[in-house]
Amino acid sequence: MSNLTITSAQGFRAGTATCGIKQSGKTDVGILVADSPCTAAAVFTSNRFCGAPIVVGREHVRRGRLRAIVVNSGCSNVATGERGVADARAMCAHLAAAIGARPTEVLPSSTGVIGEFLPMAKVRVGIDAAAAVLSASVRAGRAFAEAIMTTDTRVKLAGERFRIGRTTVTVAGCCKGSGMIAPNMATMLGYLTTDAGLAPAQLRRLLKAAVEPTFNRVTVDECESTSDTVAMLASGLACAVTGGTAEARFAAGLRAVCESLAYQIAADGEGATRVLEVAVRGARNPRDAHAAARAIAVSPLVKTAVHGGDPNWGRIVQALGQTRVTYRPEDVVVRLGGTILFRKGAPAPDLDRRAVAKLMKAKHVAIEVDLGAGRAADRVLTCDLSREYVTINADYHT
Amino acid sequence: MSNLTITSAQGFRAGTATCGIKQSGKTDVGILVADSPCTAAAVFTSNRFCGAPIVVGREHVRRGRLRAIVVNSGCSNVATGERGVADARAMCAHLAAAIGARPTEVLPSSTGVIGEFLPMAKVRVGIDAAAAVLSASVRAGRAFAEAIMTTDTRVKLAGERFRIGRTTVTVAGCCKGSGMIAPNMATMLGYLTTDAGLAPAQLRRLLKAAVEPTFNRVTVDECESTSDTVAMLASGLACAVTGGTAEARFAAGLRAVCESLAYQIAADGEGATRVLEVAVRGARNPRDAHAAARAIAVSPLVKTAVHGGDPNWGRIVQALGQTRVTYRPEDVVVRLGGTILFRKGAPAPDLDRRAVAKLMKAKHVAIEVDLGAGRAADRVLTCDLSREYVTINADYHT
Repeated sequence: MSNLTITSAQGFRAGTATCGIKQSGKTDVGILVADSPCTAAAVFTSNRFCGAPIVVGREHVRRGRLRAIVVNSGCSNVATGERGVADARAMCAHLAAAIGARPTEVLPSSTGVIGEFLPMAKVRVGIDAAAAVLSASVRAGRAFAEAIMTTDTRVKLAGERFRIGRTTVTVAGCCKGSGMIAPNMATMLGYLTTDAGLAPAQLRRLLKAAVEPTFNRVTVDECESTSDTVAMLASGLACAVTGGTAEARFAAGLRAVCESLAYQIAADGEGATRVLEVAVRGARNPRDAHAAARAIAVSPLVKTAVHGGDPNWGRIVQALGQTRVTYRPEDVVVRLGGTILFRKGAPAPDLDRRAVAKLMKAKHVAIEVDLGAGRAADRVLTCDLSREYVTINADYHT
Repeated sequence: MSNLTITSAQGFRAGTATCGIKQSGKTDVGILVADSPCTAAAVFTSNRFCGAPIVVGREHVRRGRLRAIVVNSGCSNVATGERGVADARAMCAHLAAAIGARPTEVLPSSTGVIGEFLPMAKVRVGIDAAAAVLSASVRAGRAFAEAIMTTDTRVKLAGERFRIGRTTVTVAGCCKGSGMIAPNMATMLGYLTTDAGLAPAQLRRLLKAAVEPTFNRVTVDECESTSDTVAMLASGLACAVTGGTAEARFAAGLRAVCESLAYQIAADGEGATRVLEVAVRGARNPRDAHAAARAIAVSPLVKTAVHGGDPNWGRIVQALGQTRVTYRPEDVVVRLGGTILFRKGAPAPDLDRRAVAKLMKAKHVAIEVDLGAGRAADRVLTCDLSREYVTINADYHT
C-alpha cells in the first residue's frame, strides 16, 4: 500500500464527515478541495441509467476546470429522476459556498443503493462538517478514501513520485469498488490528483489512455455500475508537463497508479479470496484478444473453480468456446501458471491434476491462452466467485 | 410432474445401468431404443469447443433417421481430441451391435466433467447391461431420465397426449441441466419421443421452432455447455402428421412439453430456491426484447437480490442500462409481480418496500419491463443465485 494519498500532491486538501447516510455509522461524506482552480478530466460509466451525479458531473467537467469534488457513500442517487439531479446540483452548490467556489467548479459523486433519494439535510450537514476539517495530511487523504467505501473491505490507495527535469512530481489516487464492476468505461469511483500542470485536452487524453488498460480491464461481476467515475485534478504547482519526454514520464506514472488501484479492486472484489488474471495472446486483433480474455474472466464456472482450487480447467475451454473470436480449436494452447493444460484439442498428456490444483489455489491465479491466430494480446483481471459474494449481495440492501 | 416418459410413446424402450463412471455409484448409462428406424432431428450447442459426441451426433442425425440414443453421465468427453471422437463412435458401434442396428443409426451423448477421457471398458459393460434390461415401462423411461443427471436434484419429465383426427398421439420427453445453462441453441441434454409420423425436414423444423422460445430462453449461469443436445425420435406408429391442422396440434403439444422441461431446468438451476421470469415488452424489435430480458436475467446482482428477497430493484434498471437496446430511460416502466416499481425515471411514488420484499420472496418472481419503444416482446427464465451455486461449482470436480 502506498504512503501517498490524494493530498500528497501539492495544492490539495481533503475532509470527511459522518452524517448518517450509512446505517453503519461510518464516514459517508468526503470532499477534496484544491487551493485554486485545477485542470480537470473525468471518464464516466456508459450505463444508460447513469446516476444524477454523472449527469451533473459531465456538465461541470466539460470545460476542463474544477476546484473540488464532493462524494457521499451509502446512497447512489441513481434512478431518482429530476429530484435526483437537483440534489446533485445542491451538493455542489453547498460545497461551493463553503469554500468560495462556483457550483460548476465542483464534481459530485454518490455511491450506494440505487433508487433512493439522498437525505439532503444530512448531506448538507456532512459537507459543512467535512469542510471544517480540511487538511493536506496523509491521514486526511486516507480518510477520504475510507469515506467513499461501500462493500469494500480495504482502503485503496496508490501513488507515484518521479522527476520531470529537476522537479519532483506526485501522482496519487484512491478508489472504491468491489461489486458491480465491469470493464466498460470507468468501473468504479476513482479520484486522482497531481501537482503537474497539464492542459485540459492533454489531461483528458492521458487519463483515458491510463484508464483503458487498467480500470477497464477489471471485472468482478460484469455488472456495469450506474455511478462509475474516474476524475483527476492537476494543480500545476510543481511543473508543467510539456514535451514528449515529460509527457511519457507522466503517462507512465499515471498508468502505474491506475494499475495498482485496478489490481486492488480485483483483490478486494466482493467475497474474493484470490486474484485471477486472464491473459490472451495470439489473437487476430485487439478486439478478439479482449473478448476472449473477458469471456473467461466473467465465467461463473471458471470463477467458482478458481474459488474451490478445483483443477476443472475444462471450463476455461468451455468459456472460450462460447465466444465468436477467430481461432481454430486445435491451435489453442491453455496454460495455468506456465503449465500447459490443453493443446491440440486435448489435455496435455502428462497433466498432473494435483499440480494443477495447487496452481488454482495460489493468491494470484494466472490463466494464459494462446489462440494461435495472430499477434494481438490483452488481459483482464478478476477474482474468484465465492459464497461470500452471494451473501454480500443477497443481504446488501437490508 | 408428468406420468408420461420417453417410453410412453409407442415403439420405444429404455434401459439403464451403473458402470462406475460416476463416483457416486448412481446410474450413469442410459439407452433409448426404437423398435424400428425413426425419423429423427436434433439441435446442438453452438459452443466452438463442442464435445466429441456432438461431432459424431451431427454426422449421424444428418440423414434424419435414427434407431437409438446412448448417453453416459459423469464424463462429458469434451476437449478430448481425436481419441474422444473415436470413443464416441465406439459407444455407437457397441450399442448398434447389441440391438442389431448400424452405428450411424445411434446418437451419442455424454455429460459431466470436461477434459477427461471416457473409461471405455466401463462404458461398454454399461451399454451391455442397459441393453439387457430394455423396457417400455414408465419406470424404465424414468430411470433413463435419472441416468442422465449430473448436478440435477430432480428428474425432469414432461409429456402431452392429444388427438390428431381420431388417433391419440403422445409426445414425451426428459432432460437434464442445472448448471452451465445459457440460452443459445439447445442448452442442456433433452430427449423427446413421439409416436406421430413426420418427415425428417418437418420434424427438424418443428423441433427448432419449439426449442427457440423454451430451452433457448433458459439461463442459469449464462455458461453455454459444450455438450448441449436436444434430440427427438418419431416412430410414426400412431399416425402421420399431415396437413396444417394436424401439424399445428402437434407443434402445440411439442411446445408444451419443451416449455415444461425448460421451466423445470430453471427451477432446478444449481442452488436455485426460486424461479425468476423476466418479461420484456414494448421493444422496438425482437432482438432488443431478447437482449433486454437476457441482460436482466443474467445479472448476478439481480439474481442475488432475488435470492435474498431483497427489494433492491435498482439493480434491474442497472442491468437494463448496460445494454445497447433502443429506449428512452424516461419511458421505461418496471413492474414486479404486477406492481410498478419504476417509471418516468424515478421510483414509483407510493412504493411500499415491504410489499416489494414480499414479491421478491415468491417461488416465482416475475419481473416485467416495458421499454415503451415498440411492440416486440420476449421473456427469459432463470433462477436466483445462491451460496449453494458456488458450493456446487467450487467443489464439483473433486
